Amino acid sequence: MTKNIKKVVLAYSGGLDTSVILHWLREQYDCEVVTFTADIGQGEELEPARAKAIAAGVREIFIDDLREEFVRDFVYPMFRANALYEGEYLLGTSIARPLIAKRLVEIAVITGADAIAHGATGKGNDQVRFELSAYALKPDIQVIAPWREWDLLSREKLLAYAEARGIPVEMKRASGQSPYSMDANLLHISYEGNELEDPWQEPAADMWRWTIAPEQAPATPAYLELTFAHGDVVAINGQTMTPAIALAELNRIGGTHGIGRADLVENRSVGMKSRGCYETPGGTILLKAHRAMESLTLDREAAHLKDELMPRYASLIYNGYWFSPERRMLQAAIDQTQQVVNGVVRLKLYRGNVTVVGRQSDSDSLFDTAIATFEEDAGAYNQADATGFIRLNALRLRVAGRKRGG
Amino acid sequence: MTKNIKKVVLAYSGGLDTSVILHWLREQYDCEVVTFTADIGQGEELEPARAKAIAAGVREIFIDDLREEFVRDFVYPMFRANALYEGEYLLGTSIARPLIAKRLVEIAVITGADAIAHGATGKGNDQVRFELSAYALKPDIQVIAPWREWDLLSREKLLAYAEARGIPVEMKRASGQSPYSMDANLLHISYEGNELEDPWQEPAADMWRWTIAPEQAPATPAYLELTFAHGDVVAINGQTMTPAIALAELNRIGGTHGIGRADLVENRSVGMKSRGCYETPGGTILLKAHRAMESLTLDREAAHLKDELMPRYASLIYNGYWFSPERRMLQAAIDQTQQVVNGVVRLKLYRGNVTVVGRQSDSDSLFDTAIATFEEDAGAYNQADATGFIRLNALRLRVAGRKRGG
Amino acid sequence: MTKNIKKVVLAYSGGLDTSVILHWLREQYDCEVVTFTADIGQGEELEPARAKAIAAGVREIFIDDLREEFVRDFVYPMFRANALYEGEYLLGTSIARPLIAKRLVEIAVITGADAIAHGATGKGNDQVRFELSAYALKPDIQVIAPWREWDLLSREKLLAYAEARGIPVEMKRASGQSPYSMDANLLHISYEGNELEDPWQEPAADMWRWTIAPEQAPATPAYLELTFAHGDVVAINGQTMTPAIALAELNRIGGTHGIGRADLVENRSVGMKSRGCYETPGGTILLKAHRAMESLTLDREAAHLKDELMPRYASLIYNGYWFSPERRMLQAAIDQTQQVVNGVVRLKLYRGNVTVVGRQSDSDSLFDTAIATFEEDAGAYNQADATGFIRLNALRLRVAGRKRGG
Amino acid sequence: MTKNIKKVVLAYSGGLDTSVILHWLREQYDCEVVTFTADIGQGEELEPARAKAIAAGVREIFIDDLREEFVRDFVYPMFRANALYEGEYLLGTSIARPLIAKRLVEIAVITGADAIAHGATGKGNDQVRFELSAYALKPDIQVIAPWREWDLLSREKLLAYAEARGIPVEMKRASGQSPYSMDANLLHISYEGNELEDPWQEPAADMWRWTIAPEQAPATPAYLELTFAHGDVVAINGQTMTPAIALAELNRIGGTHGIGRADLVENRSVGMKSRGCYETPGGTILLKAHRAMESLTLDREAAHLKDELMPRYASLIYNGYWFSPERRMLQAAIDQTQQVVNGVVRLKLYRGNVTVVGRQSDSDSLFDTAIATFEEDAGAYNQADATGFIRLNALRLRVAGRKRGG
Repeated sequence: MTKNIKKVVLAYSGGLDTSVILHWLREQYDCEVVTFTADIGQGEELEPARAKAIAAGVREIFIDDLREEFVRDFVYPMFRANALYEGEYLLGTSIARPLIAKRLVEIAVITGADAIAHGATGKGNDQVRFELSAYALKPDIQVIAPWREWDLLSREKLLAYAEARGIPVEMKRASGQSPYSMDANLLHISYEGNELEDPWQEPAADMWRWTIAPEQAPATPAYLELTFAHGDVVAINGQTMTPAIALAELNRIGGTHGIGRADLVENRSVGMKSRGCYETPGGTILLKAHRAMESLTLDREAAHLKDELMPRYASLIYNGYWFSPERRMLQAAIDQTQQVVNGVVRLKLYRGNVTVVGRQSDSDSLFDTAIATFEEDAGAYNQADATGFIRLNALRLRVAGRKRGG
Repeated sequence: MTKNIKKVVLAYSGGLDTSVILHWLREQYDCEVVTFTADIGQGEELEPARAKAIAAGVREIFIDDLREEFVRDFVYPMFRANALYEGEYLLGTSIARPLIAKRLVEIAVITGADAIAHGATGKGNDQVRFELSAYALKPDIQVIAPWREWDLLSREKLLAYAEARGIPVEMKRASGQSPYSMDANLLHISYEGNELEDPWQEPAADMWRWTIAPEQAPATPAYLELTFAHGDVVAINGQTMTPAIALAELNRIGGTHGIGRADLVENRSVGMKSRGCYETPGGTILLKAHRAMESLTLDREAAHLKDELMPRYASLIYNGYWFSPERRMLQAAIDQTQQVVNGVVRLKLYRGNVTVVGRQSDSDSLFDTAIATFEEDAGAYNQADATGFIRLNALRLRVAGRKRGG
Repeated sequence: MTKNIKKVVLAYSGGLDTSVILHWLREQYDCEVVTFTADIGQGEELEPARAKAIAAGVREIFIDDLREEFVRDFVYPMFRANALYEGEYLLGTSIARPLIAKRLVEIAVITGADAIAHGATGKGNDQVRFELSAYALKPDIQVIAPWREWDLLSREKLLAYAEARGIPVEMKRASGQSPYSMDANLLHISYEGNELEDPWQEPAADMWRWTIAPEQAPATPAYLELTFAHGDVVAINGQTMTPAIALAELNRIGGTHGIGRADLVENRSVGMKSRGCYETPGGTILLKAHRAMESLTLDREAAHLKDELMPRYASLIYNGYWFSPERRMLQAAIDQTQQVVNGVVRLKLYRGNVTVVGRQSDSDSLFDTAIATFEEDAGAYNQADATGFIRLNALRLRVAGRKRGG
Repeated sequence: MTKNIKKVVLAYSGGLDTSVILHWLREQYDCEVVTFTADIGQGEELEPARAKAIAAGVREIFIDDLREEFVRDFVYPMFRANALYEGEYLLGTSIARPLIAKRLVEIAVITGADAIAHGATGKGNDQVRFELSAYALKPDIQVIAPWREWDLLSREKLLAYAEARGIPVEMKRASGQSPYSMDANLLHISYEGNELEDPWQEPAADMWRWTIAPEQAPATPAYLELTFAHGDVVAINGQTMTPAIALAELNRIGGTHGIGRADLVENRSVGMKSRGCYETPGGTILLKAHRAMESLTLDREAAHLKDELMPRYASLIYNGYWFSPERRMLQAAIDQTQQVVNGVVRLKLYRGNVTVVGRQSDSDSLFDTAIATFEEDAGAYNQADATGFIRLNALRLRVAGRKRGG
C-alpha cells in the first residue's frame, strides 16, 4: 500500500544510509524531499551535509544547532529524575529522539510537507521514539520508515543501490571505518553490532572513542566542583556556563579521566534483548553529583518517592513517550521537588571513578549537625522519643506475633 | 519507670560500651545478664569476649558463628533484589541487625530471660532494627536500650564509669585508636562521626580499612567469573563456595583492587540526615554481577517491576522491617523471578572499577542473536510488525493530539 | 501473505460469526478445521454447537466444561488481588480469555494443528488476550484472526456470505435478538455497541439480563455469610461449595437483589476509549467481602502494598498478560499474603447495595479489642508512646521548616 | 517533665472534653489559654462556644468560618486524586485536621502563644495529624496533648473533674446522648466505639445521623448533573456553586437517597486496627462522578499512574502528612493531569446507589466514536495494525517460551 505523499521531511545526516533514503523516497513516492540536519553535539561538521543535499538537488534544506535546547529542555529535566534505564543506561540516545522528531514536525508544518522520514531500522528503539513523538505532536503526519519498507537490508545492497544511482559514497565510510552501529550526541556515544552481538565477548579496546581507558588516564586525580540551581548544573568550578557548554565541559573532563563507559544487555522497546556499549562521561558525573546534591537538600520521603518513580520515568523515555501525558505528570512531580536542590558538590575523578567528597548548601541543607552529632547535643534531639517511635511502629508486628506465634 | 527484669540477654562485644552496659544493667535492674557474642564476619576474635564475660562473672555465655546463616539467609536474599538504599548504600549494617535480634530472642527463650539489651544509641537506626525485629519475633519481650536511659552520653563519662567500677578497659581502644564510630560484618565496614560530621569535608585517607586506595591498587586488572544459581553466587572462577566463603573471597579480591568505597549523606529511620562512609568490596562486585546476570536471563517486565519495588524493599531493610509481612511479600515476588537467574558473569576489576565484560547462560539466556542481529535475520523478526506496534501505541496520543492541538 | 496452514483449531460457539469463520478458514487456507467449544458458564447449551460442527463436516470436535478450572485457577487468584481495572471494571471478560487460549493451544498439540483461530475483532482487547496467551504458551503457534484479514466487516456482509454458502443461520440470532455485542461467563455478562456508543446516553432498561433492576428487587434485605480460606470463598452460609458452584450461587443471589451493574468508559489495550456495561453480581459481592476479610486479618503494610500493586496487576490481566513473568511475580506476592485471610464475612444485600455488617476470624483476626477500646485498657497500649512516635515522624518536617521558614 | 508554657491556643468546641482541658491547662501549666473554634461544617452553632469561653474567662477567643477554605483547599484537591484509604474510607476526618492545625499555629503567631493544645486521645490518628501539621508549619511550637498526660481516662473521671471545678456540663451531652465517639465536618460524620468495638456486630439502625436508610429513601430515583472544571465540581444541575455550597448540596441530596454509608475495619496510624462507620453522602457522589469525568477526558496512562499513586497519597493524608514535601510532590503530579478534566457527568441516585448514566465533554472528551464503533469506520482505525502490535508485545514471551518450553 503505497501512500500518496507529496513532500517529506527527511532526518538527513549526509551519510550513506540517509543519502540512499533521499533517492529512494523520490523513486518510491515520486515526492519532494526536504532535508533536516541537526547539531545535537554529535561532533560532526554539518556543512558537508548541506553540500551533499544541494548536490542531490534538495531545494529546502534545514540545518539547525539544537545543542542548547537539547541540554536545557531534554537532558537537564531528565537528570532531575536521576533517570537510569535498567539500573545502568543513561538514556543518551533515547533523550535526543523526541527533539529531532519535534523539529521534523515543525519543519513539516513550515514547508507544508505531509510526511516525515527517518533512517531508523525496524528492529530498534529509535523508530518508536521518532514516530511516537511525531504522532503525539502532529497526529495527522505520515511517517515513512524505509528500513521497514524496502529490501535493502544489508550494507552490500545499500552500496549497490547507491552505485547504480550515482549516489556519492565517501570511501572511508563505505569501507566501514567503524564496524559498529553508532550514535552520538552531547550526552553520549553508543555502539552496537559486530562482536558485541556475543554478550560474552569483551569489546575491542579500540572501539571506545570519547573516553581514555582508565589504564591510560592520568595518574593524578582531578577535583571538580559543580554548582546546582533548582537541580540543574549552572557552574563548574565556580564558572557559570550554559547547559550545553557545561555538559561539553563535563564530557571533556570525564573523558580525560576514563569516566562513563558502560557495557550492558538491555531490553528494547520492541521486545528483544540487545547488547550496547556507551560512553557518557559528562552524564555519569552529572548523575553522581545530582544525587549527592539531593542527599543534602531533599526531604527523605520526597527522595524515596522519586527513587520509586524513577524506573518508570526512565522506561517512558526509553520507550519514546517523552511527549506523553504520563511523562509530563511525572515531570511535574519531579520538578516540584527541585526548587530546593541548590548548592555545590565536590567530586574526585580518577581513572574511571567518580567519587563524591563534599556537598554543601547554605540555603537548603537539611543536614543538621546539632542533631546528627555523636557528641552530646544539648537537647537538639530527645533520645527518649525513640522508645515511643519504635514501640508504635512495632505495634502491628507485636499484635500479629501474639496471634500467630511470632 | 524502672521495669521489673530478672534476666536479660545482652548483645555483647567485650568492648568498652557493652562492658559498661553489662555492669550498668546489673546495677540498674538488679538482674542477671546473659551475654551473646556473634561472629558475623566483623573480623575480631571472639575468645577475648568470652574471657571478659567470664571475668565479669557472667554465667551464661553464648558465642556463635553466624557467618553462613548471615550470608545465606540475609545477604543473599537481599542481593536478589539488587537492594540499594537511596541509590548508594548497600545496607551492610542494616541486614545484620535482624539476625542478631533473632538470636538474642532465641537465647532469651533458651535461658528464660525476660529482656534483651543492646548498645545502640537513641539517635541511630540500629536501635530501631534490633527492637522491631525482637518485637516481631517475640511480642512480649522487654527491651533495654541503655543509651536511651542513662546519662553516660559521652566517652569521658563511660570511661569514668568504667574506672569507678574497675571494669578493665583496653588502652588501645580507650585511647581511641579510631576516632570513628564503626561497624563491621562480612558485608561491609562503616564509619561515622569525627570529621565526617561535616559533609563538605573529604574523609581522611587513613580512615579506610578494608580496601586499598584505587591509587595504590595493582596496575594490572583482574578478571573474575562468578557463577549464579537461582540468583545467588555459587562459584568464583569455577570453584564452588559456600555463601560466606564466597563473600569473604569477593571482599578479599575487591579490597585488593580498591573496590567498594562509598561516601554519602543518608536519611535515617529516626528522621535526621547523617553522613556515612562504607567499604563494601564484595557487595559492590556482587550487585554489579547480579544485575548483569539478570540482564541476560530475566524478562523485561519482571526486571522493571523489580526495579520499581527495589527502593521500597531497601527502605524496609534499612528501617528494620526484615521480619515484617510486607518484606516477606516482596521477597516472595523477588524470589519467584530468580529461578531463571543462572549462568556466569565475567568481570574486570581495576583500581576501584568493576566492569562487566561478559555474561552467558546456556540454560536461561533470553538473548536471541538471530533476532537481535543487525544483519539479515532470515525472518526471525518481521520488521513490518513494528508499524502496527507503533501505530497502536500512538493511538491514544494521536486522539489527544487531535482534540487538543498536539 | 497467506500462511501455509494445514490444520487450525477454532474457538467455536456455533453462532453466526464462528460458523462463517469455519467456512472462511477452509476456503482461505484450504485447511482442516478443529472446533473447540467451552463451557465457562456463559449459560448456553453446548450440544447445538456440537451438532452444527458435525453438520459442517468437522471431524475433530472438542467440547469441554471448564467452569471449575475457570473459577479455581483464574477468577479466585484474581480476586485475591482485589483486582479492579480503572477503579470500576471487574475484568470478567479479560480473565476468561487466557483459559480459552490455553485450551486452544493444548488442542493444537493434541491434534497436531499448526494454527489457532478466534472470532475477536481487530479493534478489541480479546484478540490481544487470546494471542499473547497463545504465543506465551506455544511460541511457534500460528494465529489466524479472520476479522483482521477479511472484508466481511458488517453483519450484512456476514449474512450474505453465510447465505451464499448455505451456512445455516438461526433466525432469532440473525434478526438480531440483542442489538449489543455481548460476552458472558461465570463471572459476568458484558454489553457494548448500539446506543452505548454515545457515552452520554443511559442504557436501555431492557438491556440488562442477569440482574433485576434495584427498583424491582425485593423490598426485604438478604443477609449472607461467606467463609474464606486462604483468601478464597469456600462456603456460603456455612455450606461448603466448589469455586464454580459458589460463584454461580453468588450470581444467583446477587442478581436477585439487583447487585453488580456497572456502566463505564474504559481504555482499551489497543489505545481507544470505549463504553461498556457489565453485570457482575457474584464478583461484586466477592470483592466487597474479600476486602472486609482482609481488613480484619491482613497486616496494614501488606494490605497497603497490595493496594498499590493492584492497579498494575489489573492492567496486566486486562491487557492479556496472564501468562507473563510479571503477572506470576505479582501473584507470588499476593498469594503469600493470603495464608492468613481466613474467617467469615457477613453481608447485607438490598436493592443494588452490598454492605458489610460483620467480619470475624478466630484464627487470624488482628483486631485487638483491648488495644482499640475507647475505655481504659489496663495498659495494653501506652498513650505516652505516641509522643515519641509523633516527634520522630515530625523530625524531618521540623528541620525543613526551620530552614525554609515553615 | 512539665514544660514552661505561658500561653496556649486550644482547639475548643465548648463540649465537656475541651472545657475540662481548658481548666486543666491553666491548672497544670499556670498559663493563659486562647480558644479557637472553627466552623468546618460540623453542623453545630458556634455562639454557644463563644459564650462558654467568655464565661470561663478566656480573653482571646477566635471563632472562624473555614468552610470554603476547607472544601476549596483541602477536600477538592484530595478528590482530584480519587483518594480512598484502604479501598473504602473517604478520609473525612483526616482531611480536616491539617486545616485546624494550620489555623491553631496562625493564631499562636498572632497571639504570641508558645503552645497549642488539642483534645485528641493518645490512641488515635488525630493527635498525629494535628501535631505533624503543626510541627511542619511551625517547628518550634510546643504541643500539649492532655489525653496523653493526664489520668482522666474515662468519662466518669472527666465528669468528676468538671463537677469539682464547677465547669458547667450540658446535661444532654453529659448523659451521653450518643454512645459513640463522633466527628463531623462538611465531608462526613464518623462513629467509633460502643458496640462497634465488636467487628462482627452490625451497627444499630439509629446510629446513622446524616443519611436516610436506603430502605426509607424515596422510591423514585433522582437524576443529577455535575459540571467539572479542572477536576473540581463547579455546578450542580447547571447552577454554579462555591465549593462549600456544592458539597453541602451534595450532602443534602445524597443523604435523602441513603447514599454514602460505610462500615469498616481500618488500620490506624499508630498501629492498631479499629472499626469505624462513616456517612459521606456528598463525597461518595463526588468520587463516583470525578472518576467518570476522568474516564472520558484523561489519558489512559496518566489515569493508570494516578491509580497506582492514589493509595500512597491517601495514606499520607490519613497519617497526617498533608503539609509534607511528598504530599506536595504527588499533588503537583495529580493537579497537572486535571487541566483537561472538564465536562458534565450525569448520575442516578436511588436508595443507596449512585450510578453514572452519562458523561460528556465538548472540549476534552477523548472518546472517539469513529474509532470505537463496532460498525465500519471508514479507515479511522486500521485493524491490521493490531497484528504487529500483538506480535511485538508477544516477542519477549515467545523468546522465553522457546527457551523454557512455554
